[in-house]
Amino acid sequence: MRDPRHDILFTPVQVGPLTVKNRFWQVPHCSGMGYRYPNAEARMRGIKAEGGWGVISTQEAEIHPTSDISPANEARLWSVEDVPALRAMTDAVHEHGALAAIQLVHNGLHSANRYSRMIPLGPSPAVYDGNDPVQARAMDKSDIADMRRWYREAALRARDAGFDIVYVYAGHDMSVLQHFLSRRHNHRSDEYGGTFENRLRLFREVIGDVRDAIGDRCALAVRLAVDELLGPEGITCEGEGHDIIAALAEVPDIWDVNLSGWPNDSQTSRFAPEGFQEPYIGFVKSVTTKPVVGVGRYTSPDSMVRVIRQGIMDFIGAARPSIADPFLPVKIAEGRLQDIRECIGCNICTSGDNTSVPMRCTQNPTVGEEWRRGWHPERIAPLESPTQVLVVGGGPAGLEAARALAARGAEVTLAEAGGEWGGRVSRESRLPGLATWGRVRDWRLLQLQDRPNVQMYLHSPMGADEVLAMGLPHVVLATGARWRADGVGRWHRLPPGDLGKVLTPDDLMSGASLPEGPVVIFDDDCYYMGGLMAEIAIKAGAEVTLVTPDSMVGSFTQNTLEQGRIQTRLLEMGVRIVTAHRLEGRKGNVLEVACTYTGRIMRLDCATLISVTARLPEQDLWQALKARRADWVDAGLRSVTRIGDCLAPGTIAAANYAGHLYAQDFGSVSATIPFRREDVAQLFTM
Amino acid sequence: MRDPRHDILFTPVQVGPLTVKNRFWQVPHCSGMGYRYPNAEARMRGIKAEGGWGVISTQEAEIHPTSDISPANEARLWSVEDVPALRAMTDAVHEHGALAAIQLVHNGLHSANRYSRMIPLGPSPAVYDGNDPVQARAMDKSDIADMRRWYREAALRARDAGFDIVYVYAGHDMSVLQHFLSRRHNHRSDEYGGTFENRLRLFREVIGDVRDAIGDRCALAVRLAVDELLGPEGITCEGEGHDIIAALAEVPDIWDVNLSGWPNDSQTSRFAPEGFQEPYIGFVKSVTTKPVVGVGRYTSPDSMVRVIRQGIMDFIGAARPSIADPFLPVKIAEGRLQDIRECIGCNICTSGDNTSVPMRCTQNPTVGEEWRRGWHPERIAPLESPTQVLVVGGGPAGLEAARALAARGAEVTLAEAGGEWGGRVSRESRLPGLATWGRVRDWRLLQLQDRPNVQMYLHSPMGADEVLAMGLPHVVLATGARWRADGVGRWHRLPPGDLGKVLTPDDLMSGASLPEGPVVIFDDDCYYMGGLMAEIAIKAGAEVTLVTPDSMVGSFTQNTLEQGRIQTRLLEMGVRIVTAHRLEGRKGNVLEVACTYTGRIMRLDCATLISVTARLPEQDLWQALKARRADWVDAGLRSVTRIGDCLAPGTIAAANYAGHLYAQDFGSVSATIPFRREDVAQLFTM
Repeated sequence: MRDPRHDILFTPVQVGPLTVKNRFWQVPHCSGMGYRYPNAEARMRGIKAEGGWGVISTQEAEIHPTSDISPANEARLWSVEDVPALRAMTDAVHEHGALAAIQLVHNGLHSANRYSRMIPLGPSPAVYDGNDPVQARAMDKSDIADMRRWYREAALRARDAGFDIVYVYAGHDMSVLQHFLSRRHNHRSDEYGGTFENRLRLFREVIGDVRDAIGDRCALAVRLAVDELLGPEGITCEGEGHDIIAALAEVPDIWDVNLSGWPNDSQTSRFAPEGFQEPYIGFVKSVTTKPVVGVGRYTSPDSMVRVIRQGIMDFIGAARPSIADPFLPVKIAEGRLQDIRECIGCNICTSGDNTSVPMRCTQNPTVGEEWRRGWHPERIAPLESPTQVLVVGGGPAGLEAARALAARGAEVTLAEAGGEWGGRVSRESRLPGLATWGRVRDWRLLQLQDRPNVQMYLHSPMGADEVLAMGLPHVVLATGARWRADGVGRWHRLPPGDLGKVLTPDDLMSGASLPEGPVVIFDDDCYYMGGLMAEIAIKAGAEVTLVTPDSMVGSFTQNTLEQGRIQTRLLEMGVRIVTAHRLEGRKGNVLEVACTYTGRIMRLDCATLISVTARLPEQDLWQALKARRADWVDAGLRSVTRIGDCLAPGTIAAANYAGHLYAQDFGSVSATIPFRREDVAQLFTM
Repeated sequence: MRDPRHDILFTPVQVGPLTVKNRFWQVPHCSGMGYRYPNAEARMRGIKAEGGWGVISTQEAEIHPTSDISPANEARLWSVEDVPALRAMTDAVHEHGALAAIQLVHNGLHSANRYSRMIPLGPSPAVYDGNDPVQARAMDKSDIADMRRWYREAALRARDAGFDIVYVYAGHDMSVLQHFLSRRHNHRSDEYGGTFENRLRLFREVIGDVRDAIGDRCALAVRLAVDELLGPEGITCEGEGHDIIAALAEVPDIWDVNLSGWPNDSQTSRFAPEGFQEPYIGFVKSVTTKPVVGVGRYTSPDSMVRVIRQGIMDFIGAARPSIADPFLPVKIAEGRLQDIRECIGCNICTSGDNTSVPMRCTQNPTVGEEWRRGWHPERIAPLESPTQVLVVGGGPAGLEAARALAARGAEVTLAEAGGEWGGRVSRESRLPGLATWGRVRDWRLLQLQDRPNVQMYLHSPMGADEVLAMGLPHVVLATGARWRADGVGRWHRLPPGDLGKVLTPDDLMSGASLPEGPVVIFDDDCYYMGGLMAEIAIKAGAEVTLVTPDSMVGSFTQNTLEQGRIQTRLLEMGVRIVTAHRLEGRKGNVLEVACTYTGRIMRLDCATLISVTARLPEQDLWQALKARRADWVDAGLRSVTRIGDCLAPGTIAAANYAGHLYAQDFGSVSATIPFRREDVAQLFTM
């Protein structure tokens, strides 16, 4: 039964010619699928419609080959050839009674046009914003006419593809319309540059052109970055962000407002709480009568109700929460709040798009598998015949395997050696800023509790004897991994000599205290752990140096949009950062590191060395059971399977996925390629 | 008429069951096309066959989804679904009487499996070699059996796709077979690890399995990295590189030998001359009676004859020279040596694959356009009606436009303001290490000379008066670009304050001498120029600091495989490198730079500031002609078109492409999307 306080979330709102059935609006977000994986894309979006979202949007849709951000997998609407792929998405969305929206984009300075080989376009001559040796040219009047035509024609194609809502987009520093708005990018002296009204001109014109194209069949949304967090150099919500909304207040049918660039818009939970955009977007409703949508990683229905009641926005915009739980609206509607799988704000999803592959999710292992494996976030096929499974290890892989097996009807016994559930999730969620990661554990525990077919035991270390004695036919090992202490990782494939006593993240997460004296972190992990170790050590009062063979701290966190904030935080806390150095050896309290380019030695005072390089699977139980292979039949043991970190250490998302995969595949024979492919070549007549 | 000294290059050689018609062997090389752009791939390879190569190979072909290096566009042979795309390539190759080869690969530790989401496989537990948070698991005996089966099945599919030669590959640190061979990667204690013979076991077995699969219909090639340039930590040509060849000497039908990793194998002309691999691979023929192929960026037929006569190899392997000139063999065969378009060794080609898009070439603008635009490297359609064109500017864009227009039959007048041809190509080819870049100019000058329909003028600056007075109907402006001196580029979108007197690369290339005192390079260009300025300044005796907002020197040169060598050279020369800093301002001889993360100021002694950020198009003539628009008709002037850097500064490859594109499109109406697409979605039944 729904809590009546949440009823407001299910009241319809008029948006232009359309009625949106509720307040749940999946704003445009990248998926890493796009035009490359249109079947995956359509099914993924369709499932969100099934989950109750009132509006489902595409990612940005390139309108022309001068806006080619290959190899990124965005939506593409260059020509009528692109319509069928998008039609598949709108059909899937409409099937469940949601409205389909598309975000048209010309990327301007943000496209290198690597595939089309065309010259990028911008308001003024300027360098492409990545590192390709490519510059944009300044658009002349005929280019501006072309640009307007391209938007118009793309809007017509969008309408023909079945979209209900068409976005004009000036956000994330990724749209030529924002480039024209921006004093940083627009150095023109004609009527499209200079004054505020001039810089606004193209945006205003394109909005009008799109309106003319779509007529009254579609609603027109405008997505605007109201603050770039650049201070006076950029758009601010007190300055031109406000002025743009005021100038165009009643022009669109709905305003979608957010922060720019992407790392500001999609901040992780490590750096920003739920609702973090409210101080920036709160003003919008005071200057327009049109409905407003914004984001802020909302997963709590109470927060959603609050922002609507407070008049901050009319729709709860969501990207990441809709990935972690496509059925979030339905669950609120049905009062099943304990079933909400809350986004943890880790941004493993953005790392998919940023590496040009379909996104994954730490909370929702079915993302990206909806079409190719037929997985559904809420439904899983019952087992054909009941069976019993012992899961050893209560970390993310074990919890998800147990949960999904139980949902399929298996009799599940889950044994955890330690005194708490969650494994690495629990340990890591106690690191600075990662508390919300505990949701991975919490959701699964809630789903497992009160299940009659699940038995759960803490403080239950299992050896081969114990496993065999239980007499269960199937055993899943999810025993995790431990950090190496020998320096071996990416750079050092063999141990780099005598390092003396080395601490690892496991030691610190187990509460090891740091000896007096300077601390050196050797970070060859390229992700979040090295930086966190430095943060802990400097908070403990040590002098801290972080050494990495890489060129920055945690380079993979560029893909989770966190790298800038991580390195800034460390530097501001006083951590010394030494890049491009590897380990050479240690003599007492002197650590020798060597330049990865020249081999030149640098000596660092080092009372404590913390090594963050790679992990080793915990395989003691696996080895013990293998050694007892002859006893399996008598014990009734038919299979032993390793999943997650104890097979191959990876992300929490990968562990969760491994647990889910085990449960999904249970009882079936695996094919050589266990999914449908859409990477297979298309051949044309030569 | 062919020089008889070159006859040996056209003598056939038996390779297993097959006869290769000549000594020209296009070894496996990436193209950035692969399974994503199979039509482009097939046509590109087919044209090389037409150009006379005896053997044409694919890029590496992934044999299984556990070897998924998405988003890279390699060949894919996961299943029978991949056969049609590869069949298109073998058909195109066979059409011209060449043999088709395929390089099977399992990437082992080199694959993150971002798309397949499977766990990477290696000899031992180890981290993936990129920065993804992914680790490989150690293969057990059943995995080894699977791996052998995957190779065998892939070989059968390769045979069925029409390949004549099947490669087993252990190179570039990218193959699980090399990972097993390597003491760095293989820490096993079973019969597949430890001793040399044990580490060799899987390689030997897979070669045997592939031989069994292909039988006597196909030849079997083995590609082996004989030296990793890692000294005793790696495979060396005096050590195990030699021993592997010796142990398997007569097993394959041909040995393809090279350096590992890729930045060692495909060194640019800046760092290695033609034939640079000879000291490493020269031993191979002394330990096997089988034919040998190797590479070394050979473009000179005399060098090719020498290496065969000296018994270094039997076939001239080529990747880059076959891209720059697909017709290299035919041209040697016909004695048309002046027509050879020699590879300049710049590696813009590798930047295509490294950014997951189809490759380009600085010398050959038709690469990647063979299928989608129907371009051919040697043939261009005659104009339907003769016309006259004035080309202003004798740099790469102007030279190529003139050359290709002349080849189409236009009457071409080429006017260059300065005293030499080549524009930036000539200026840059005088920078340290870039001499071979002059080939871009030289080839075009050779093609233009003696053309009756071409008039060429040096020392001929053109104003609007001069252009109008010439009375020609079509004018092409290729007037180039100049480096900015205001610090504006990627990081600074507006001038960063008072910088005092600033030198640019143009000043140094024009021979400006450096004042006494410390030099600071501000490098926001991310490519080669910043490092070269530092090299020049330190050679001139200055104390040099290179400051960049980026995390390394010339980050884009990672894509040309040069970044390691560039930064090493600078450091070894004594250049101080300050990363992650932007310009803040200058007070006398003190330059203030600020940390891009924290804004903290650092002060640098700076007598001379050299700014390497971005370029501005030279548009004086364009502006002058636009201002005289009313006079065009009377002057008979119908079109004025900007191409290359004067429209939008870019690479030399882009300038050359722009010149070629102008000539190709001349007289035709351009379509909205002026090429056939193979990025259009494939839809399956949902």
